[in-house]
Amino acid sequence: MKKVNMKLFNRSIILIFSIILIFSNSNGQYSKDSIQIRRIFDMALENGTAYKNLKSLCKDVGHRFSGTKQADSAVNWGYNLLKSMWTDTVYKLPVMVPNWKRGNIERAYIFHDDTKLNISSLGGSVGTKKRIKAKLVVANGIEDLERLGEKNIRGKIVLFNKAFDPKTINVFETYGACVGQRYSGASKAAEYGAVGVLVRSMTLQNDNHPHTGSMSYTNKNHMIPAAAISTEHAELLVEKLREKPNLNLVMKMNCKLLPDVLSYNVIAEIKGETEPESVITIGGHLDSWDLGEGAHDDGAGIVHCIEVLNLIKANGYRPKHTIRVVLFMNEENGGKGGQEYANWVKTRGEKQIMALESDAGGHTPRGFSISAPDSIFDKIASFKPLLEPYGCHLFKKSTWGGGVDINPLKLDSTLSINPNMILMGFIPDSHRYFDYHHAETDVFENVNKRELELGAGAIGSIVYLIDKYF
Amino acid sequence: MKKVNMKLFNRSIILIFSIILIFSNSNGQYSKDSIQIRRIFDMALENGTAYKNLKSLCKDVGHRFSGTKQADSAVNWGYNLLKSMWTDTVYKLPVMVPNWKRGNIERAYIFHDDTKLNISSLGGSVGTKKRIKAKLVVANGIEDLERLGEKNIRGKIVLFNKAFDPKTINVFETYGACVGQRYSGASKAAEYGAVGVLVRSMTLQNDNHPHTGSMSYTNKNHMIPAAAISTEHAELLVEKLREKPNLNLVMKMNCKLLPDVLSYNVIAEIKGETEPESVITIGGHLDSWDLGEGAHDDGAGIVHCIEVLNLIKANGYRPKHTIRVVLFMNEENGGKGGQEYANWVKTRGEKQIMALESDAGGHTPRGFSISAPDSIFDKIASFKPLLEPYGCHLFKKSTWGGGVDINPLKLDSTLSINPNMILMGFIPDSHRYFDYHHAETDVFENVNKRELELGAGAIGSIVYLIDKYF
Repeated sequence: MKKVNMKLFNRSIILIFSIILIFSNSNGQYSKDSIQIRRIFDMALENGTAYKNLKSLCKDVGHRFSGTKQADSAVNWGYNLLKSMWTDTVYKLPVMVPNWKRGNIERAYIFHDDTKLNISSLGGSVGTKKRIKAKLVVANGIEDLERLGEKNIRGKIVLFNKAFDPKTINVFETYGACVGQRYSGASKAAEYGAVGVLVRSMTLQNDNHPHTGSMSYTNKNHMIPAAAISTEHAELLVEKLREKPNLNLVMKMNCKLLPDVLSYNVIAEIKGETEPESVITIGGHLDSWDLGEGAHDDGAGIVHCIEVLNLIKANGYRPKHTIRVVLFMNEENGGKGGQEYANWVKTRGEKQIMALESDAGGHTPRGFSISAPDSIFDKIASFKPLLEPYGCHLFKKSTWGGGVDINPLKLDSTLSINPNMILMGFIPDSHRYFDYHHAETDVFENVNKRELELGAGAIGSIVYLIDKYF
Repeated sequence: MKKVNMKLFNRSIILIFSIILIFSNSNGQYSKDSIQIRRIFDMALENGTAYKNLKSLCKDVGHRFSGTKQADSAVNWGYNLLKSMWTDTVYKLPVMVPNWKRGNIERAYIFHDDTKLNISSLGGSVGTKKRIKAKLVVANGIEDLERLGEKNIRGKIVLFNKAFDPKTINVFETYGACVGQRYSGASKAAEYGAVGVLVRSMTLQNDNHPHTGSMSYTNKNHMIPAAAISTEHAELLVEKLREKPNLNLVMKMNCKLLPDVLSYNVIAEIKGETEPESVITIGGHLDSWDLGEGAHDDGAGIVHCIEVLNLIKANGYRPKHTIRVVLFMNEENGGKGGQEYANWVKTRGEKQIMALESDAGGHTPRGFSISAPDSIFDKIASFKPLLEPYGCHLFKKSTWGGGVDINPLKLDSTLSINPNMILMGFIPDSHRYFDYHHAETDVFENVNKRELELGAGAIGSIVYLIDKYF
């Protein structure tokens, strides 16, 4: 009993001191910060440019898949916009990117009744040469292939039909649990003798849009074609198969992978006042899928990060560290931009204080996922009361990093010269993100102005705090 | 120094004990609750009926303004739906409601160039008899009338053009700061000799839909017509007036108020197991404006509360107290249903444990506003960790009550026989609510299934906790 009390007592002492620390902070220094953060949000909500910039990216450039002319236009768009701002430096960092072409044929239908299916070739897939005509087998995710076995799969088209679990509160988590069938399903099914795969679209919606995405082959000698199918048509196939177990499907696609081509990350900096050699990186990805306009994915992230420069300036705040915005190329089907940036940072021997990525859409901000040593995390968590009035005060410990484009900066330990480096991912509301994700519905009209602006305010605020206190 | 330390020490002791209490609770009793709440959300998200019910209300009934046939249909819709569920009692509580008719003429245009303006007569307004042709004066809210003075107002139409402040984070707060010009603008302007008023729509959007709403006259002998005008056309008028300060406006409306008619609140109950005479009321309002389909306002609240009955049953939980769902009539233009319900409760001498209202739309749930004595509030606040995994753990102290329909239960102290009664308002994300509010865009298609279901889960969870711990 006494021992327990002592433990509690010790804990309590630590707690008391933490509280005293927070209170003394919040009454003193932090009160100035709350004024500064209020100004950041005011600016974002009253005179923000994020929405206007997003409109321009979506409507003047449109979708911008790696290796396309539109991707080149997007590079110029980003370069010119950042040049027109108060940046100290703007430059383009060359990066070789995959050059996958969708082609002009992507068709699938049920042979006996000609029912057309809404599909979209997965990025990286091979074409079908002529056409594939084969029977269908349904697998509830990759983990279901073993149960089905080669006897049920050989010579057939596999429909991967593992559905998002609506019970998972954060939709990104159920995406994580399902996306394996899209990324690796073709290779795994090929091991059992499949001749093609269709993958249920990665969305909670019952809709008739295919939601595309990337895939990859583990065995380059055995590559079978793969396409996303709309959730409605995945369900339709399951139903038709119940009525007619031997139905044949036809798939025809002429997508192909050409040699890598040159593209660019666009980089802009505001030099730090007192520690210009230390860098805070913030970014999103400039490339998008070729369906829709890449509005939430990741036009929102691009304009969020560009807006941060405005928000900081408008407040007359001069950052201590160099603030660097990176518009990454090729997140969607290769991640080459992020890897190249990390290599470049390493070559320069730069100290990175933090890298923050916004690649989860333009919905209402909730907070940030943070990958950092415990003591650093705790310091960031003490900022919570400052963001609470804006509802974006969720600080979630992450072991995963902060995003595909920034993770190479730290997760390869040879790259980072700062063991205390923070990786941060912006967390907006996840509920509607996959309604639009990688589909033709990811357009400007489906982004809410106010939600987008609040996101910029949230990111601007955390960048300000990290710059000031680290 | 010593004194300060002692104070801190005492505070710390209280803090330590609070923490021990919370931990012992959460390790023991609350862990069962977390399982129960998980089940409530699972049910709402996987097998929920809220979305299906909302579709039926919006598409089979449509809009349902007090005093219309559609309102009668809505009463029957609610009655039949609740009858088909596991309720112990369903009945209709008669209530006399205002019977304002929009008429078939509502027109406004600029005289010299025939520019048509998008307007919607405000509920309760008188018509124009023939037509009004008058000059225009712009007032930045009611508070601006005094500055303008009678010399600038007499004989003119006043455009109340006070805009929502985008900097206010909770949009309901800026609505609160602007809505006076809609509700009382006509009466106030009439005091200065105005002949009619147009009121800027209550929305942050720059759109071309008039967002209607209710208004009232303080002086029945001096009633001038009032209409909402779209934000785009309000801005257009300001611009045109700058070019041509003497422009004439024409208004023509034939709306009118007829004698009150009979309608109903629809009430359904599950009898409590151990304290059936004590009641937990949950409700939303069944009536809506006659533009759009009343999907967010307040179809969402209606189906939220109906769903709570399913969520509780599916868990095999038998409530201690009687759980009563009330579908209130006439919240929008009179609040007669709420007043009648409070009178009825008083007549029966019922003890109300809590009344909860959902009338803030069907967006992602954030938490609850709570009007209760401090000790009760603190007890409710201790539930916070249970709702945190669902992101709806904001517990906000309110002095205002919980909603127009439930406030009469407590705020008139002669009505309540329980001084500890809790008034609770459901708080969803506010950012998009006024995009649709009282406009033709408030339709089923603008409600997101998942967000709606999460709201039902949040309300189901808090009802479960209140029932169990009070």
